[in-house]
Amino acid sequence: MYYETFTQMKKQLGQLDKWLEAAAAYAQSKSFDPNVFVGLRLAPDQFAFARQVQSTCDTAKLAASRLTGKDAPAHPDTEQTLEELRTRVKSVITYLEGFSAKDFEGAATRKVTQPRWEGKWMKGSDYFLQHAVPNFFFHIAHAYAILRHNGVAIGKKDYLGALDMQAKEG
Amino acid sequence: MYYETFTQMKKQLGQLDKWLEAAAAYAQSKSFDPNVFVGLRLAPDQFAFARQVQSTCDTAKLAASRLTGKDAPAHPDTEQTLEELRTRVKSVITYLEGFSAKDFEGAATRKVTQPRWEGKWMKGSDYFLQHAVPNFFFHIAHAYAILRHNGVAIGKKDYLGALDMQAKEG
Repeated sequence: MYYETFTQMKKQLGQLDKWLEAAAAYAQSKSFDPNVFVGLRLAPDQFAFARQVQSTCDTAKLAASRLTGKDAPAHPDTEQTLEELRTRVKSVITYLEGFSAKDFEGAATRKVTQPRWEGKWMKGSDYFLQHAVPNFFFHIAHAYAILRHNGVAIGKKDYLGALDMQAKEG
Repeated sequence: MYYETFTQMKKQLGQLDKWLEAAAAYAQSKSFDPNVFVGLRLAPDQFAFARQVQSTCDTAKLAASRLTGKDAPAHPDTEQTLEELRTRVKSVITYLEGFSAKDFEGAATRKVTQPRWEGKWMKGSDYFLQHAVPNFFFHIAHAYAILRHNGVAIGKKDYLGALDMQAKEG
C-alpha cells in the first residue's frame, strides 16, 4: 500500500495547490497582499504557513526517496510568495509522478535514517506508518487550518478532493 | 497494511488523550475552566474542539467497523467536558484493541457506504486511502491546532508519540 499512499499524497498536494490559488484570490478580493499568508501562523512558536507547506512537500518527497532509494530534487526553502510555494508543490507532484508500484518493493524492510537521528534508524514500515504519514497530514492540515483561520473559503471537500465513489446499483 | 494503520490510529488516539490531560493542566495553572476548550474553534464555520475530537474518534471507529463488518459501540456526541472527551477517546482505543490483522482480510474489496451517500458506495481500499486516513488526520491535527493556538504547551513529539527507533550500529 506504499505506492497507493503516495498516490494519495500526490492528490492531496494537488488540493493544496488549489488552496494556494484560493488564498491568492481571497487576498485580491479583499485588496491585501496575498503574500501576507506566507508568514501567518496559529501560535508564535509554531511553523508559519510557508514552512507548513514546505514541510508537507518535504515529508512526501523525502519519504518517497528514502523508501525507494531514488534521489529527490533539492528545494532550498527560499519561497516567499504563494506563487513560489505553488511551484514547489507542483515540483513534488511531478517527482511523485515518476514512481511506480515496483519502486516500493522492499520498502517495508529498508533502513531509513536522516542526519538529525545521529546514526539511529527506523525500519521502512515503521518510518512510513509512525513518521511519514502522520507528519504529512499534520503539516497539510495545519496549512489548511491557517488559511481557514484567516478567512479563505475552503471546505472539507477541498481538503479531500474528488472521491472514487461508485453509483447506486439497481 | 490496514491493521497496522489502525494500530497507528490507536496510538495517535493515545496521544490525543495526553493532549486533553495537558489542556486540563494548563487551564488549572491559569485558573480558568478547562471545559472552555470544548467550544473553541479556529474559524466560526469550522467544527469546535469537541466535534474535532468526536470526529477523530468516529473516523477511526467507523472505518474499522465498515472495513471489517464488526459492530461499533454507539457514541451520542453528548460530551461537554474534557473528561467526557477523554472517556470517549479511551472507548475507541478499547474498541480498536479488539481487532486483529485477520479481521481486515478482504477489507480492500468490501463495499463501504454510509447513509449520507444515498446508496453510493466506495471500494474498501478507496474508502480507506481517500476518506478514512485523510479525515482521521485532518480532525486530530485540528484538535491539536486548536489547543496549540490557545496556549497548551504540546509539541511535535506529543503529536507523533514514541517512535520505534533502532540503535546506531557498531
